Amino acid sequence: MSVEEHRKLLSEINVDVDRHAKMMNMGLESYKAQFMSQKNRPEAMKYFDWFMSEIQGQRIAEINELRKQKKPSVGAFCIFVPEEIIVGAGGACFGLCGGSPATIADAETELPRNICPLIKSAHGFKLQRTCAYTQSSDFIYGETTCEAKKKTWEILNKHHPVHVMNIPHMKRDKDLKMWKEEIIEFKEHIEEVTGKKLSLEEMLEGTRIINEKRKALLRLDSLRGLNPEVMPITGKDALFVTQMGFLDDPKRYTQKVNELCDELEKRVEDKISVFEKDTPRLMILGTPIAPPNWKLHTAVESSGGAIINEESCIGHRYYKDNVDIDNIKNEDDLMSELMKRYSEVDCACFTPNTPRIDKILKMYKDRQADGVIYYTLSFCHTYNIESFLVTEALEAAGIPCLVIESDYSPEDAGQIKTRVEAFLESISFKKKANKLKSKS
Amino acid sequence: MSVEEHRKLLSEINVDVDRHAKMMNMGLESYKAQFMSQKNRPEAMKYFDWFMSEIQGQRIAEINELRKQKKPSVGAFCIFVPEEIIVGAGGACFGLCGGSPATIADAETELPRNICPLIKSAHGFKLQRTCAYTQSSDFIYGETTCEAKKKTWEILNKHHPVHVMNIPHMKRDKDLKMWKEEIIEFKEHIEEVTGKKLSLEEMLEGTRIINEKRKALLRLDSLRGLNPEVMPITGKDALFVTQMGFLDDPKRYTQKVNELCDELEKRVEDKISVFEKDTPRLMILGTPIAPPNWKLHTAVESSGGAIINEESCIGHRYYKDNVDIDNIKNEDDLMSELMKRYSEVDCACFTPNTPRIDKILKMYKDRQADGVIYYTLSFCHTYNIESFLVTEALEAAGIPCLVIESDYSPEDAGQIKTRVEAFLESISFKKKANKLKSKS
Repeated sequence: MSVEEHRKLLSEINVDVDRHAKMMNMGLESYKAQFMSQKNRPEAMKYFDWFMSEIQGQRIAEINELRKQKKPSVGAFCIFVPEEIIVGAGGACFGLCGGSPATIADAETELPRNICPLIKSAHGFKLQRTCAYTQSSDFIYGETTCEAKKKTWEILNKHHPVHVMNIPHMKRDKDLKMWKEEIIEFKEHIEEVTGKKLSLEEMLEGTRIINEKRKALLRLDSLRGLNPEVMPITGKDALFVTQMGFLDDPKRYTQKVNELCDELEKRVEDKISVFEKDTPRLMILGTPIAPPNWKLHTAVESSGGAIINEESCIGHRYYKDNVDIDNIKNEDDLMSELMKRYSEVDCACFTPNTPRIDKILKMYKDRQADGVIYYTLSFCHTYNIESFLVTEALEAAGIPCLVIESDYSPEDAGQIKTRVEAFLESISFKKKANKLKSKS
Repeated sequence: MSVEEHRKLLSEINVDVDRHAKMMNMGLESYKAQFMSQKNRPEAMKYFDWFMSEIQGQRIAEINELRKQKKPSVGAFCIFVPEEIIVGAGGACFGLCGGSPATIADAETELPRNICPLIKSAHGFKLQRTCAYTQSSDFIYGETTCEAKKKTWEILNKHHPVHVMNIPHMKRDKDLKMWKEEIIEFKEHIEEVTGKKLSLEEMLEGTRIINEKRKALLRLDSLRGLNPEVMPITGKDALFVTQMGFLDDPKRYTQKVNELCDELEKRVEDKISVFEKDTPRLMILGTPIAPPNWKLHTAVESSGGAIINEESCIGHRYYKDNVDIDNIKNEDDLMSELMKRYSEVDCACFTPNTPRIDKILKMYKDRQADGVIYYTLSFCHTYNIESFLVTEALEAAGIPCLVIESDYSPEDAGQIKTRVEAFLESISFKKKANKLKSKS
């Protein structure tokens, strides 16, 4: 797509075009420096490199084309958004910009300094009008998973329509019942936006599409992390692929992820690894990592470590469960199955949330990982407090763990790198010691 | 009560007696310095001074006497606790220690640094075993009003039993329905603790007792703030009286507050004011002020200002509504009325929360106040984010407003005093200018 077309399109959706162009250029430069410079990348990453180059160009044109056809366009910051319903209505569901420090100063004119950077960044993008996705959304999907978001919606709603879904914080029967009602209400809201009833078949089709997408991502996760002998793709590339799953058209995306997986499968067979033998294999636990927040992955993988999994909303938590559609006879069945699937999400907003700990321990064992980094965005109370219980369980299991709390400022990148290096060194030392021990 | 009796009792409930004694002495010294030194205090404050001297002595003995009789003893940090039910069962419902910086370092061994000081302080009191109230509680009442508390219960529960009530964050019909179920569940939990069914008459009696208490506090609020000519009690004393309402036996307390009000009524008649004419009259909005956190009141009232109201959970939000028991025929009616009353609480945990803004504007007008201080505890996301909408409304109404975010450390006391002084000066200047204007 030509730059001129972009400018016209972006103006139409009220983007601050000049400021946006400047930010996009910086983002692309950063991408080139951090991603394109990696050695031995899979061929299939070319598609994702192209997608990055058109991230707020052709994809935005596609979304706005759907809007012209009265298909819904919904932006979200949370994996509780029932995207099956939006896609079923032929629309687009996407993650909104919220991973950049460039919009935070603007956000702080309306929001406190000491809340999560993702919320501030996202709010700032709206105030600046520099996110073409935000500008392309019929409404922003809000939820009550965390209080900083919950209260920010009230302010954001002054600038852009927000629809809030009340996520209960417990998972007893009565909470789940209410949750199902919320999903039904969401569906009705989509019908209001499009002015059209949604059929069961349409919603089932949307569910099938999203099920396939999650399956492809689970396949990528296995290829990437389940074989300690061969790591056919860097953690950074795999993270980027996952991040793009929140923006791209789901059908095309699924196909491209599967093409990548085909290539990775071949690499595993041929024992082509992008990391040297004995590279410490780390899992990342915690809060979502929105692009262009690649700080942690860059720190680890430029320090001699490999990231084999993200147990986060942009990661395993997003794609680990699917909707069972085998026995659905009517809409009520579908709503029940959707609710069931979403209630498996082990967001730290829930109390208690012990299944998350069990899952982490299992993931660690399955992947034969060497350590974990518990990463939280600053001021994310839920994940931050839950880290005590998680690290307690990790410690009990003898699993090395580093806890990092960070925001989007580049200032702590050096400090993080130093801590990561020390952590990797201690893991390598432990690995060597264990080897010696097993030999003797 | 003799010190020796205290030591025996405190040991029995597993208080760290020596550490506790040290803290209590410091608290009493601080109380003497900040309260007893005030001039022209009402005679009836003597009771509250006595209560302070026995705050973790005789009152603790009373509570533990009830426990011996299998009456429930419940500690809480939130005004959503249905105390009517606990008092109906003949038990004691009280606020737990959570306003001191002395326990925070201990809490930070399990909790993040950057969460609300009240939560950390309370958690630290349990770890240290230096709060006789915490030690006296059959269980701690937890709720889901804020995520830092919600997640901390999971950790606190390892040290002391916690019963969590799921407070919905919206007030639609379905949320209220669930809330009512939560109150019923709470009642059942109390029955479990006591091993006895609660009768409707018992619960009605509990409700009557708490209604009377709230009425007395509302009376104090009116006497203190609704007459701009006479301010018969300092804000600090009135705050302390309110704070003790969360600890004292409700019947005795109600009587003592009413005795104080009788005296204040007389003072108003006789035009006996504890503040000079034209002292700027401030309202405090925001988060609860747990004893011994008297920092803000001391800063204001030692700088030439008067505090006439706290729109906080320790304040107006607690006592503004009563339970309507005139038409109750059965238990279900009572539960509905309790839910109705509690759903009027305009905690910032709710979205949207516009009734709070309307209430604040009305309070300001009714009291003919001269300005407000929006006070939040550090890292309290809900009240902190809501401050934007509140201050926006205050600004539109031309109301002077100062926003202060603080924790329990003494370090910012000087800075707060400087800001308060400047704020009071600007208010006095405005008042004088207005007077001149109205004369010319």
